[in-house]
Amino acid sequence: MSFLRQYLPILVWGRSYNRQALSNDLVAAVIVTIMLIPQSLAYAMLAGLPPEVGIYASIAPIVLYAVFGTSRALAVGPVAVVSLLTASAIGQVAEQGTAGYAVAALTLAFLSGGFLVLLGLLRLGFLANFLSHPVIAGFITASGLLIATSQVKHILGIQASGHSLIELLVSLVSHLGEVNLPTLAIGLSVIGFLFWVRSGLNPLLQRIGIAPGLAGVLTKTGPVVAVGLSTLLTWAFALPESGVKIVGAVPQSLPPLTLPGFSPDLLQSLLLPAILISIIGFVESVSVAQTLAAKKRQRIDPDQELIGLGAANIGAAFTGGYPVTGGFARSVVNFDAGAETPAAGAFTALGLAIAALALTPLIYYLPNATLAATIVVAVLSLVDFSILKKTWRYSRADFTAVAATILLTLTLGVEIGVASGVAISVLLHLYKTSRPHVAEVGLVPGTQHFRNINRHDVTTDPQLLTLRVDESLYFVNARFLEDLIQSRVTEGCAIRHVVLMMSAVNEVDYSALESLEAVNSRLKDMGVGLHFSEVKGPVMDKLKSTHLLQDLNGAIYLAQYDAWTNLSTSSPPAGRAAE
Amino acid sequence: MSFLRQYLPILVWGRSYNRQALSNDLVAAVIVTIMLIPQSLAYAMLAGLPPEVGIYASIAPIVLYAVFGTSRALAVGPVAVVSLLTASAIGQVAEQGTAGYAVAALTLAFLSGGFLVLLGLLRLGFLANFLSHPVIAGFITASGLLIATSQVKHILGIQASGHSLIELLVSLVSHLGEVNLPTLAIGLSVIGFLFWVRSGLNPLLQRIGIAPGLAGVLTKTGPVVAVGLSTLLTWAFALPESGVKIVGAVPQSLPPLTLPGFSPDLLQSLLLPAILISIIGFVESVSVAQTLAAKKRQRIDPDQELIGLGAANIGAAFTGGYPVTGGFARSVVNFDAGAETPAAGAFTALGLAIAALALTPLIYYLPNATLAATIVVAVLSLVDFSILKKTWRYSRADFTAVAATILLTLTLGVEIGVASGVAISVLLHLYKTSRPHVAEVGLVPGTQHFRNINRHDVTTDPQLLTLRVDESLYFVNARFLEDLIQSRVTEGCAIRHVVLMMSAVNEVDYSALESLEAVNSRLKDMGVGLHFSEVKGPVMDKLKSTHLLQDLNGAIYLAQYDAWTNLSTSSPPAGRAAE
Repeated sequence: MSFLRQYLPILVWGRSYNRQALSNDLVAAVIVTIMLIPQSLAYAMLAGLPPEVGIYASIAPIVLYAVFGTSRALAVGPVAVVSLLTASAIGQVAEQGTAGYAVAALTLAFLSGGFLVLLGLLRLGFLANFLSHPVIAGFITASGLLIATSQVKHILGIQASGHSLIELLVSLVSHLGEVNLPTLAIGLSVIGFLFWVRSGLNPLLQRIGIAPGLAGVLTKTGPVVAVGLSTLLTWAFALPESGVKIVGAVPQSLPPLTLPGFSPDLLQSLLLPAILISIIGFVESVSVAQTLAAKKRQRIDPDQELIGLGAANIGAAFTGGYPVTGGFARSVVNFDAGAETPAAGAFTALGLAIAALALTPLIYYLPNATLAATIVVAVLSLVDFSILKKTWRYSRADFTAVAATILLTLTLGVEIGVASGVAISVLLHLYKTSRPHVAEVGLVPGTQHFRNINRHDVTTDPQLLTLRVDESLYFVNARFLEDLIQSRVTEGCAIRHVVLMMSAVNEVDYSALESLEAVNSRLKDMGVGLHFSEVKGPVMDKLKSTHLLQDLNGAIYLAQYDAWTNLSTSSPPAGRAAE
Repeated sequence: MSFLRQYLPILVWGRSYNRQALSNDLVAAVIVTIMLIPQSLAYAMLAGLPPEVGIYASIAPIVLYAVFGTSRALAVGPVAVVSLLTASAIGQVAEQGTAGYAVAALTLAFLSGGFLVLLGLLRLGFLANFLSHPVIAGFITASGLLIATSQVKHILGIQASGHSLIELLVSLVSHLGEVNLPTLAIGLSVIGFLFWVRSGLNPLLQRIGIAPGLAGVLTKTGPVVAVGLSTLLTWAFALPESGVKIVGAVPQSLPPLTLPGFSPDLLQSLLLPAILISIIGFVESVSVAQTLAAKKRQRIDPDQELIGLGAANIGAAFTGGYPVTGGFARSVVNFDAGAETPAAGAFTALGLAIAALALTPLIYYLPNATLAATIVVAVLSLVDFSILKKTWRYSRADFTAVAATILLTLTLGVEIGVASGVAISVLLHLYKTSRPHVAEVGLVPGTQHFRNINRHDVTTDPQLLTLRVDESLYFVNARFLEDLIQSRVTEGCAIRHVVLMMSAVNEVDYSALESLEAVNSRLKDMGVGLHFSEVKGPVMDKLKSTHLLQDLNGAIYLAQYDAWTNLSTSSPPAGRAAE
């Protein structure tokens, strides 16, 4: 039973479900449904897919997440960054608008779902940690810019394409002569309206006496109003005849049953993008879920979240969708609107299913420019270059990683950008630990404490070199210590004993062990003793049965002070006794 | 001048060069030259190149290393593992025996030399540390096996090819019917003879009164004797007529002036292998140089070693050679024979130049099987599976890395093998640090010390959760701590304060900073205070100007005991005061 509960969180919250929770969940579902309709259409367009795919991708995934997910408020569906990644991935294997393109989207969702479930079952959620916060921030800022730029063509009513910012801009400029003015008028009006809704409407509503909570929720309906008004105007003035592109006929249907493609070629070429999408989607989703859970002192289980999101994506693959994840905007609205359990998500799915069945004829005259405008306004709020300033001030390594991520995402595309960001942060971290802080220490007079000889006034002994290593010893820094000891001993000819103070060493791996053995044998050749002090318990347990300790030309001291009293004044090397 | 001295170590040792050093260096050079002739021929054959290339590759590189290198005893030239890597790399771009193959070898040496010099000038020698000791040991064992297997065809006198152990064995078995018996007889005799020289001759010589040092040097001439005898027999019995393959006509010439290929295609396809060869060669060379330097309390400069080896490889590229590095066997012989300065290397180069000019007609009848036998005997001494047992006992992570390296090198080839070894060790290290040891601590009664509540009998306070983190906080483990705190606080409803004891935290990167900010704001939402104790100076310096400390719902305590006395009994949360 506890096994089932772990993998089916619905069994936990479902048992205590009551009328009050039902009513709260229903209210939240209505609000979220209204908000999701234009958002789903727009993100599907961003992914290069027919608008209804965005709605399909919100139905089964929401229900499946409600069963398997652990967050009470997370709303799963298409999101901007994942839509962009989807467009970039499947654009490489199929032509937009073809049947192959839609199948590739299903396959990508399937692979991504399978990978997430696999990670979850293997409890490998920690892999997501390889995406450092600055890399994510940089990536999201750069993708926001890319997404906004990619939508400009819809607002201008022209053709343009490209995977990098420069390609996009060049393509836009070269088609500037073909701008469609009615389209541009709609696009700019919607952008202006939506920005006003964000910044001007909320205070206005509050001034006329509407409660802040309700005012906040009302402003989220801005895109729906924009969609309604612009559709009405386009129909009334027959704007398609003037060249305004519209959504057109959308099938009235529940999500269809679909199959992803299983050809080895397709699977192979989509595998890497699927892994990337999974990890980025997971990181985004977990951050949102964690933030919302904390507000109610609930918690989420990251490994189970992998399974929840994986199930959602597999669901998307079989119901005409494309890769999905937990979205920030929709989840916050869901939470603010009072959703108490994942059942709110299920009700949202019901609402969207009704919309897909009944409302699609209403959006026949919806201009693409309106959808593009809602995307632009949504993603521009993601663009935040302040991460550059913040990391520059805090740490040059983090700054380098974020700057490289932004630059490479904009110039070489999303996939190379984020992969390089991860590689650069790992390399910089390894570089930092490859040259650990090693302090030569001496005795603080009148105490048993040892401190850095460069910072403190301490007693030293020319025959005795004591080094405190402030890092675990492992292969990346093993040789560093080897070189350091060799160079110190070669310079200081009077040195008869080297003591390594190991209080900050949490691990000694096999490479470091061999390095220490080499140091020991070289020092022995030079007639110099090697000693250790303050070795941690777990490290000592591992070292005990090694050649290092058996052949050690010296001794192990519990406290550095013991090493000092034993070695500093004794004229015959005390280490000899241990030979 | 000190600049010149750094980059031209010859200026240091050259000034004090005297008659005694000259005489010692000359003796060593004669011994090494005799040993190098068969070795160079054999390794060239291993690389798939004409035998004279092995000698050419020993001449200019030795001289250039003498000028730029820092080790007094290192002997640079063809070595087994690098020869195997060369064969594998250039076999992918050209057919063995063609002019393109030789040019590819030159190009590989050129790229490898350029990369090494670049690393040296940028002082990036630490990159070699990414090859952990177990990965190197596993790789060398697996390559030794591969090399020995690749030579079996010469000993059997049959055709066979393949890049993995299985391919090689299958190919050998399928050609077993074509075994040439005279060739096999020569091959087995030489192998038997060489093994006897190694294990039987040395004690014999010592029994008849020869000094151990001289006896050791004499046993190194075993291959020369084998070469001489088998050549003589092959000529005397006209064995080539019975199908014994011989070296044949070798040009009598000093190393020719050659040019590497500069076509972009060739450069691009050889770049990665060149980087791999550089790093493996560098690691092997530096280990040897360091071991020998330590015996005389000298030291080497790893970054300058990069320049020395790089110059040697560039030299090889322009004088008809192929990639070289500092070899273990030749360097040890050089050292044991009494070489005092790199001038010994220059004299060896002179000896080899004379051999290339005058002695090549003498090896016309040298059977390939003899060369193959010397390779087999040399590389089988590299094969040592004990690393598996040693790492298994010491650390499962190291064992995994070495086992994967051996397995992948044998099955998928040298390049994939070593690259996977590096990737796996890095990932395993990151995995270990991704779940750092975090201890909940309590007060040891009657003291000011805090210890793990699970191991010691300590006083705790249900309102106060104190966690000691035994690892630097960075992006890979930032979320781990975030989750851990959230789960502890969610479980322990009485908790009013969380204290993080930071005595073992050497770094807090930007991701960890943001995680801590998130923890702080979530705890604040729950009405729980967040405090820090025993933050290290450098970490505190960086944290000082951050939002984390400005918005901290708690305080910073120098000592954990201060935190305890302030927080444990106070009924109104002390953290509130800091808000």
